[in-house]
Amino acid sequence: MPSNHFQNGIEKAKHVWSRLPSSEEAEEQDGVELSRKRNGTNVESLDYEVIENYAYRKQQAQRGRLYIGCYVAVKWFFALLIGIGTGLAAVFINLAVENFAGWKFAATFSIIQSSYLAGFIVYILINLALVFSSVYIVTQFAPAAAGSGIPEIKGYLNGIDTHGVLLFRTLIGKIFGSIGSVGGGLALGKEGPLVHTGACIASLLGQGGSTKYHLNSRWLHMFKSDRHRRDLVTCGCAAGVAAAFRAPVGGVLFALEEVTSWWRSQLMWRVFFTSAVVAVVVRTAMGWCKSGKCGHFGSGGFIIWDISGGQNDYSFEELLPMAVIGVIGGLLGALFNQLTLYITYWRRKYLHKKGNRVKIIEACLISLITSTISFGLPLLRKCSPCPKLETNSSIECPRPPGMYGNYVNFYCKRDSEYNDLATIFFNTQDDAIRNLFSARTFHEYSAQSLLTFLVMFYTLAVVTFGTAVPAGQFVPEIMIGSTYGRLVGMFVVNFYKKLNIEEGTYALLGAASFLGGSMRMTVSLCVIMVEITNNLKFLPLIMLVLLISKAVGDAFNEGLYEMQARLRGIPLLESKPKYHMRKMKAKEACRNQKVVYFPRVVKVADAVSILRNSKHNGFPVVDQTKSGEALVIGLILRSYLLVLLQSKVDFQHSHLPCALRSGSIPIRHNITEFAKPVSSKGISMDDIFLGPDDLEMYIDLAPFLNPSPYIVPEDMSLAKVYYLFRQLGLRHIFVVPRASHVVGLITRKDLLVEENEDPSTVELWSTIIRARQHDKRVNRRRSEVENPLLDGLLVQE
Amino acid sequence: MPSNHFQNGIEKAKHVWSRLPSSEEAEEQDGVELSRKRNGTNVESLDYEVIENYAYRKQQAQRGRLYIGCYVAVKWFFALLIGIGTGLAAVFINLAVENFAGWKFAATFSIIQSSYLAGFIVYILINLALVFSSVYIVTQFAPAAAGSGIPEIKGYLNGIDTHGVLLFRTLIGKIFGSIGSVGGGLALGKEGPLVHTGACIASLLGQGGSTKYHLNSRWLHMFKSDRHRRDLVTCGCAAGVAAAFRAPVGGVLFALEEVTSWWRSQLMWRVFFTSAVVAVVVRTAMGWCKSGKCGHFGSGGFIIWDISGGQNDYSFEELLPMAVIGVIGGLLGALFNQLTLYITYWRRKYLHKKGNRVKIIEACLISLITSTISFGLPLLRKCSPCPKLETNSSIECPRPPGMYGNYVNFYCKRDSEYNDLATIFFNTQDDAIRNLFSARTFHEYSAQSLLTFLVMFYTLAVVTFGTAVPAGQFVPEIMIGSTYGRLVGMFVVNFYKKLNIEEGTYALLGAASFLGGSMRMTVSLCVIMVEITNNLKFLPLIMLVLLISKAVGDAFNEGLYEMQARLRGIPLLESKPKYHMRKMKAKEACRNQKVVYFPRVVKVADAVSILRNSKHNGFPVVDQTKSGEALVIGLILRSYLLVLLQSKVDFQHSHLPCALRSGSIPIRHNITEFAKPVSSKGISMDDIFLGPDDLEMYIDLAPFLNPSPYIVPEDMSLAKVYYLFRQLGLRHIFVVPRASHVVGLITRKDLLVEENEDPSTVELWSTIIRARQHDKRVNRRRSEVENPLLDGLLVQE
Repeated sequence: MPSNHFQNGIEKAKHVWSRLPSSEEAEEQDGVELSRKRNGTNVESLDYEVIENYAYRKQQAQRGRLYIGCYVAVKWFFALLIGIGTGLAAVFINLAVENFAGWKFAATFSIIQSSYLAGFIVYILINLALVFSSVYIVTQFAPAAAGSGIPEIKGYLNGIDTHGVLLFRTLIGKIFGSIGSVGGGLALGKEGPLVHTGACIASLLGQGGSTKYHLNSRWLHMFKSDRHRRDLVTCGCAAGVAAAFRAPVGGVLFALEEVTSWWRSQLMWRVFFTSAVVAVVVRTAMGWCKSGKCGHFGSGGFIIWDISGGQNDYSFEELLPMAVIGVIGGLLGALFNQLTLYITYWRRKYLHKKGNRVKIIEACLISLITSTISFGLPLLRKCSPCPKLETNSSIECPRPPGMYGNYVNFYCKRDSEYNDLATIFFNTQDDAIRNLFSARTFHEYSAQSLLTFLVMFYTLAVVTFGTAVPAGQFVPEIMIGSTYGRLVGMFVVNFYKKLNIEEGTYALLGAASFLGGSMRMTVSLCVIMVEITNNLKFLPLIMLVLLISKAVGDAFNEGLYEMQARLRGIPLLESKPKYHMRKMKAKEACRNQKVVYFPRVVKVADAVSILRNSKHNGFPVVDQTKSGEALVIGLILRSYLLVLLQSKVDFQHSHLPCALRSGSIPIRHNITEFAKPVSSKGISMDDIFLGPDDLEMYIDLAPFLNPSPYIVPEDMSLAKVYYLFRQLGLRHIFVVPRASHVVGLITRKDLLVEENEDPSTVELWSTIIRARQHDKRVNRRRSEVENPLLDGLLVQE
Repeated sequence: MPSNHFQNGIEKAKHVWSRLPSSEEAEEQDGVELSRKRNGTNVESLDYEVIENYAYRKQQAQRGRLYIGCYVAVKWFFALLIGIGTGLAAVFINLAVENFAGWKFAATFSIIQSSYLAGFIVYILINLALVFSSVYIVTQFAPAAAGSGIPEIKGYLNGIDTHGVLLFRTLIGKIFGSIGSVGGGLALGKEGPLVHTGACIASLLGQGGSTKYHLNSRWLHMFKSDRHRRDLVTCGCAAGVAAAFRAPVGGVLFALEEVTSWWRSQLMWRVFFTSAVVAVVVRTAMGWCKSGKCGHFGSGGFIIWDISGGQNDYSFEELLPMAVIGVIGGLLGALFNQLTLYITYWRRKYLHKKGNRVKIIEACLISLITSTISFGLPLLRKCSPCPKLETNSSIECPRPPGMYGNYVNFYCKRDSEYNDLATIFFNTQDDAIRNLFSARTFHEYSAQSLLTFLVMFYTLAVVTFGTAVPAGQFVPEIMIGSTYGRLVGMFVVNFYKKLNIEEGTYALLGAASFLGGSMRMTVSLCVIMVEITNNLKFLPLIMLVLLISKAVGDAFNEGLYEMQARLRGIPLLESKPKYHMRKMKAKEACRNQKVVYFPRVVKVADAVSILRNSKHNGFPVVDQTKSGEALVIGLILRSYLLVLLQSKVDFQHSHLPCALRSGSIPIRHNITEFAKPVSSKGISMDDIFLGPDDLEMYIDLAPFLNPSPYIVPEDMSLAKVYYLFRQLGLRHIFVVPRASHVVGLITRKDLLVEENEDPSTVELWSTIIRARQHDKRVNRRRSEVENPLLDGLLVQE
């Protein structure tokens, strides 16, 4: 009786798919063929749910609660590890960058006391060496480490696993590459790479623990699933932001607003915890470095531009110039996005195709130009005399040598003079921003210097974008924004003649506006800005500026990360469906696609031929009921088929479904066999070698299929399908014909337990009810083990 | 030909359902029968999508882009109005409360100079009068205004419209009631009610604009839909928090984490804007009051306990006592939840059933007890001599009369003494918290006083919870938490003998821990705590304490709002399905439910009989194809049927489907007819009177049904259904049999536009592509108007 076999198979599949706490929460993220990318490899994510034997299931059913408890504990332990790892990585990068940069500037300043030319050459050479090391590591060792990595991480969390993004070599390349590129003075930051670093650490911890840490392998099975990896990567992402900006809440919100397309409140809590751990780790390291054990790091180090001592209040008249800053930010941000898109496109199309040597030369050339401009331009600028500073002010003019601060004495005739252009240009970016944000330094910069810097740095940032080095955009964008912000601030100070207006405040707002205009984030950016400046007073102003700049920017193009993701061929699903989808039906979306079915028991030769001749990643499986009617019994994934074909253990001679007798199923597959290692290519058809005998065998697919994929009726609006797809993070939806009848309707009531009972008594004695439910559950679970759930749906007797 | 008619009807329905920008985004929220509640009325939310005539649709298709632009502008305008409205309401409430309380204490203090007994009587009487006014307003005028309102708002945004929650009278009752109850010195706060106030303002603006503000009625149609109301209420909710705590980011996060079950990034931005507007409004009002124009308000007023001048650093040794605070917070918070649950249950079951008089007496009694304790207990306490304060400190001892501050001289023999219990007890709660949080006031409070206060206030807070007055829990919980926090802080100061530890810091952490242990929020609470204390330094510590207290609390019971919502019979869908759902199938969830079908053309008498005899809110509609096969053509809502039956305009004599000829459909229904006013009962069968002639008529349901509700196969795991239901905010899901074949598979690729084109060129010239798409869209839209979309799905020729 095939139908009976069939039923058993379905049962088996159902059990397998409903085994773990995660199994029904939602389907796994989607992977899509990125065949346009590098040499046509398909990169795809993988579902977790896999066959498992009865014994294991029974065992698990008996100790379900303990199992889940341990499982949760392990998840939290991993969150802790991610936090510590990312925090340490951030400290290491900062330590290295600060020391390289500090040493570089100290050496240059000591040499220019005797000769500016020699200083210039030394400065250029150090930068060149650092940038070369960075680009060399990236091109030779970790090509996926180039750029900020945020579009790729965003893609991963949206469901696309780009090859190589989360590998160990990428992590190493990212850490050492960003030390070189940031230390080498290029117009880029280390914050974006830190987010990528956090994600890499999270992903590696999730999958690498198995071999390195000798943890119980059953726990680690859990983290082989895409969903858990995605959760870990989300934690890593938040940890990266928290470490980069010392902004734990900002990190949580960044992960929430910017990178994930799917979110649960339980995950939020874990992300929150990871961020808190990072904050503690970073703070501890900085406290340890305060005593001077870390060289240059600690005196200037880490990204925090405290303006808590700045402007205390603001008046209504200031809202207008602030709105102007918002508009400028929107315009310049949109222009930045567009220019970087063009230049990256051009680079990818013409330059980077020519090989690594061109990439290296390009990066070195840009380093030379950057060094020349940052050293040369201040030389052309006349020095200004030092202003009279308050006696108890901590600011000195000129800045003492070897220190960080305002009023840099560079190529000045007298000692009591300073070079305003050098103060921002011939400096590390962190210090330049600190100087731009600084309060009580009226008219430190001339409008001419700021304009020069704005134009030159904007150009440099655009040109540097897309070179083969790890490169974040946060810091350069803050630089640009704070420059024009300070310009507006100078105008406001002159115009309103009020002494309680600080130019630094406007610089902060300018930075926020440019970030808003380019990256188009709102809440997370706002919180990050507040956390890095340690000033809550300007929160409403930052909100206002961000809203305006995002609105202005949105009128022109998409956000920086979205545009870059599209350029890299990462097909992100936007939060809203396209307008025309409202007029389309589900059937229309898949009209060109011929549906390739699998029978329940498939001949190996047929399976191979189907897999070779189609590119689909999921296939519907059909079988027939006793009465001969065809029924769709589930979805089989290409990757599972490949594993089955490769391992061959499930091959059978009979074309009949394998009988399922309780406890008699041998453990043929380890669960990990079906899990694709993250960021790798997985098995392809070319890896599989089948003899002629093998081709004549059969496979029963029932235990390996997903018995209930989500379905939509064929004439449902595509927009509605889109929401379903995106909200649940699906990778396949079956489009089915309209049903002939309805089995039932599910409403809210059906999904609530206490529907038939008096709510007040139930809730009051909820603990008792819970205990009872627990008993029931145990009973039910036991009975299931004996009598599997599926009542003869397909056996129409 | 019925089938042809049928097809036309489907087309019509399809057009109607896909008309507006909102129509396919997701289905509307669910309403459930709250028949256990007040006199058995069913309270339910309503879908928006309704029939509309051809002319209107054509017109709209031609100016789609402009329409959407205006539509978006109106949404933002409403967000602005909500922000302004909520901000002003908050200012008004604070102004009133501060002035009442200030006047009360001033009067009492001046009288006790001569007689403590007279002062006591005056104090009691003023409190009694205020509380009486509050409870009288609430019981006589706005019963829904009692309590904090947050569980109800949470329910509304989760999909349940409790009767009366968002009415104008509730708003009024909430505002004036909370002035009375908070001004009257009860152990409750005004923050929860403010959230409710914001939600009421938002809901009223959304629906009341039509008659009051003479705006173009077409715009207001949009805000008749549940989805838009829900968005507005979400904005109002965030605005309420932002206004209550002056915490705009906290407001956004509160709305995100705590109240909504469904979230979109577009909405986030609008909520963000509303919060920013509130912040500006509140700040402006406070600036205006600074000059003393607002009486007592402004000197102490508004909830902000600045501790930015406090402890600067923390060491590792302190983490242990902080963790202890977290544990205490979790335990006391869980106990608080459990005790309030018991007491509320008891109240609802025995006390409040006896009528309003009992409620009034109860509230007055509690006011008497509270006044007696807060006046009487400090009398029993011996005064302490003033400590030696630093000369440049702003703190004075004893506090000058009529001012706010520490060191209250109350019933002391000498002028240079203060009563530490009176400082926290005989004071407004805001000031008491400020005193508890205050830095540089070591050993101001004796452990004995703090313990006495903790026990008494905890008891008072539990007893007061659930009286028939507007009552928030934030402030009392902060009071309780900061008391034991300060106790721990005193211990730590003594134990570690370090001078850089401030007791106020521990009070802050205690407050966070108690809130976390009771309300179980994480990120939003953390941000709110940071924003109200204006201190970012303790962010990681607050995170740590919150995590611990939430974890401890979760081990015992649910959060305060969830428990209260369950007690009130509001069936919230939790974020995770129950464990046993994993083992259940969709079919099992609806097994007791007999499916009641409607034919496409239904006889009025039949419809009436079905509606009378079943309680379902949605019915599948079936029709037959030419070949006689039954097909499910959609879902009709009970509320739509009721509207159709009441209006009678769609009745027809023929039992055949009405013919649909282009342009020939008369405008029979105004869109607003189908929209249920918020928080009201809607039409019931008893409101409909049909004559014998009417009962013999027919209705063609095709134009009014939802042609493609979401479907699930009958053997899908119920947990999976749960996620679908919750993530998309559905109210009905059809459970259908397994399909016999698959029409197609939809994958990520199908949902992306540029799939067939070279991505690099496409993205670079995206603007051109967009322009082209726009043309296409216009063309498509035009062609649709002539040739409706549905190709003869049901006509099997």
